[in-house]
Amino acid sequence: MLVVQKYGGTSVGSIDMIKAVAKRVADRKKKGDSVVVVVSAMGNTTDKLIRMAKELSDQPKRRELDMLISTGEQVSISLLSIALNEMGYEAISLTGFQAGIETEGYHTKGKIQDIDIQKVKKYLDDGKIVVVAGFQGMNGSGDIMTLGRGGSDTTAVAIAAKLECACEIYTDVDGIYTIDPRLFPTARKLDEISYEEMMEMASLGAGVMETRAVEIGQKFNVPIYVALSNEEWPGTYIKEFDATMESRAITGLSASNKDLMVTINHVPYDSKNISRIFGNLAEKDINIDMISQTAPLNGKVNVSFTAPKTDEDIILNIMENLKRELNNIEIDIEKNITKLSVVGIGMRSQSGVAAKMFEIFAENDIEFKQVTTSEIRISYTIDTKDTKKAVEAIAREFNL
Amino acid sequence: MLVVQKYGGTSVGSIDMIKAVAKRVADRKKKGDSVVVVVSAMGNTTDKLIRMAKELSDQPKRRELDMLISTGEQVSISLLSIALNEMGYEAISLTGFQAGIETEGYHTKGKIQDIDIQKVKKYLDDGKIVVVAGFQGMNGSGDIMTLGRGGSDTTAVAIAAKLECACEIYTDVDGIYTIDPRLFPTARKLDEISYEEMMEMASLGAGVMETRAVEIGQKFNVPIYVALSNEEWPGTYIKEFDATMESRAITGLSASNKDLMVTINHVPYDSKNISRIFGNLAEKDINIDMISQTAPLNGKVNVSFTAPKTDEDIILNIMENLKRELNNIEIDIEKNITKLSVVGIGMRSQSGVAAKMFEIFAENDIEFKQVTTSEIRISYTIDTKDTKKAVEAIAREFNL
Repeated sequence: MLVVQKYGGTSVGSIDMIKAVAKRVADRKKKGDSVVVVVSAMGNTTDKLIRMAKELSDQPKRRELDMLISTGEQVSISLLSIALNEMGYEAISLTGFQAGIETEGYHTKGKIQDIDIQKVKKYLDDGKIVVVAGFQGMNGSGDIMTLGRGGSDTTAVAIAAKLECACEIYTDVDGIYTIDPRLFPTARKLDEISYEEMMEMASLGAGVMETRAVEIGQKFNVPIYVALSNEEWPGTYIKEFDATMESRAITGLSASNKDLMVTINHVPYDSKNISRIFGNLAEKDINIDMISQTAPLNGKVNVSFTAPKTDEDIILNIMENLKRELNNIEIDIEKNITKLSVVGIGMRSQSGVAAKMFEIFAENDIEFKQVTTSEIRISYTIDTKDTKKAVEAIAREFNL
Repeated sequence: MLVVQKYGGTSVGSIDMIKAVAKRVADRKKKGDSVVVVVSAMGNTTDKLIRMAKELSDQPKRRELDMLISTGEQVSISLLSIALNEMGYEAISLTGFQAGIETEGYHTKGKIQDIDIQKVKKYLDDGKIVVVAGFQGMNGSGDIMTLGRGGSDTTAVAIAAKLECACEIYTDVDGIYTIDPRLFPTARKLDEISYEEMMEMASLGAGVMETRAVEIGQKFNVPIYVALSNEEWPGTYIKEFDATMESRAITGLSASNKDLMVTINHVPYDSKNISRIFGNLAEKDINIDMISQTAPLNGKVNVSFTAPKTDEDIILNIMENLKRELNNIEIDIEKNITKLSVVGIGMRSQSGVAAKMFEIFAENDIEFKQVTTSEIRISYTIDTKDTKKAVEAIAREFNL
């Protein structure tokens, strides 16, 4: 059997941990499986490299940042291959571009366009363990690109898609929980979750996997298994929707502090203005999540949206430009907000989840600033100080 | 004017030093010159990476070592580009393969086969400062290769050859001396030296530049300037032979402890045997320097040669195999030897240098184990404990 395994940065954080990963990979190979291993940069290497760049410039060019941080995975792949060779296994390391990963889009936020998988296949046919650098690829101009958050997961799932095999994501959490256990220690671990639910949870900052990796999994029907990298302990399967899953109204709850909320007041009511705001944000590849807009009053509307705190600088810049274009608008940025969401395929067939949620908020005296709904998710922005109270009330109600 | 500048690892050893290099490069650009900058890995990065690999394996595969250590230069080029961008200059970093450097030969000891210089030229035409990773390239199979010792110098001179411009090597010594000043503090600095003399001195471990870089310089007539990276202080020009240089009998003296001496006794006298020994060494790309052989006695000969201490493992391996092939041979490896050489174009026209040398050795009671001569060089292997005495006596006699 062919399998793609991915080990994150915390799993290869030291020489000893690399040895441990090598042993796990070797055990799998010994069983007769063909293995592609995708690895991230060791521990906090990426952060260290970014810190060096920031010592030289507040806003280093993103192309150069990509050149810099892509070295992190390159170190990991060579060390892991050396460890595997030392154990008597034939292993070969490949950087993103050597593995045929073609990217497009913006530097530090690249997207995988396609993978020329021939080289990986050839080495697998030779009986080698192929060790691929996660998180990176090369664009059409021959520039090295990194894939942004969750990039190594994306690499792994995309390679599995091309090889038409399963993907195992080994990480520092032992699976997907109904609620992040750091937030709610008695949360239950899920044996399985659908791609859709996982995407919603991931996009809400559940932390375990990024949406885009799951999205590729769903698109190409790649079974994904998420588990601990250092123990034999059952993890969670992410797979296609299954009838047995539907009995749950809510599969999970997530709470994220990673976003800020921008409110623009007194925007002259004209769909062109709104489109310009979000067009400018999209142009800079800002990932907007919750958008809410009030009904027009005296020809003006108020618009709120959430976006990653990491993009604050770019957002501020866009807002400054906007102020010059649209007179008299007022801009307010709130950072102490938490995005709280409940997700579940069951919502499709079970009504009343939204009503129940509003009831919980009212009973517990929690104010929310925004609410948005999708087919399988309801999200609220609330004051961060109310997070614990809200999580506990919802978990109790829905038995998470 | 177009120029290639090279900054070594000690010149980019810290963030502040990278800033200082950026300032020097920027100053040059401001004068109206077009600049390609070749940089090495920061400080002792390469050693640190090798140490990590050695923690995993005594003999890591060289392909994987190349994958590992090539990250060092990649970090330097991105940081230097970020520093230049921050100062308001358009800079772009290129890894070895992105700069079109095509290599061949053995991993960790790659040789530049050719350079596809189009990309570098294009960026220069765009007015950019092009920052290229030294010491690396890519072979025909798409594997990353490093160029071995002096690799960054080689990259710089080879790029200058392709661009038909001068090459400036900035390093931690302020030029070429008659004798390494660490060995003989009153040595004189040379204003100029011929390619040939520099090659001989370099091959003897003069330390400042490697032979191969100078060889490319001579082949393509690239003027090379060697100077300090942090001061405005005249360095040494390496250039084509010039009549004025010929008045010196000896241009320089070098002493190197970097080699070991292998002696093989009782080799059955047959040219095939000798050819096999050196054939096996060449196959592993071992750089043999001094070879001496005694006249046959009772059908046996003794052969001695010097080779880099860094290749000791491989040499031992070859010798073990040799023992199995040729019965009764005895192998002796001496590590406490120094290779002492005098170099000078003047030797071509001035006789008596060899005679004078033997006289000095005799007068000072210094034994030598091997002696070899070329048109412009005489080399001796002596016991390392005699080095100081020999250097001082020769320097006195030839006024170095």
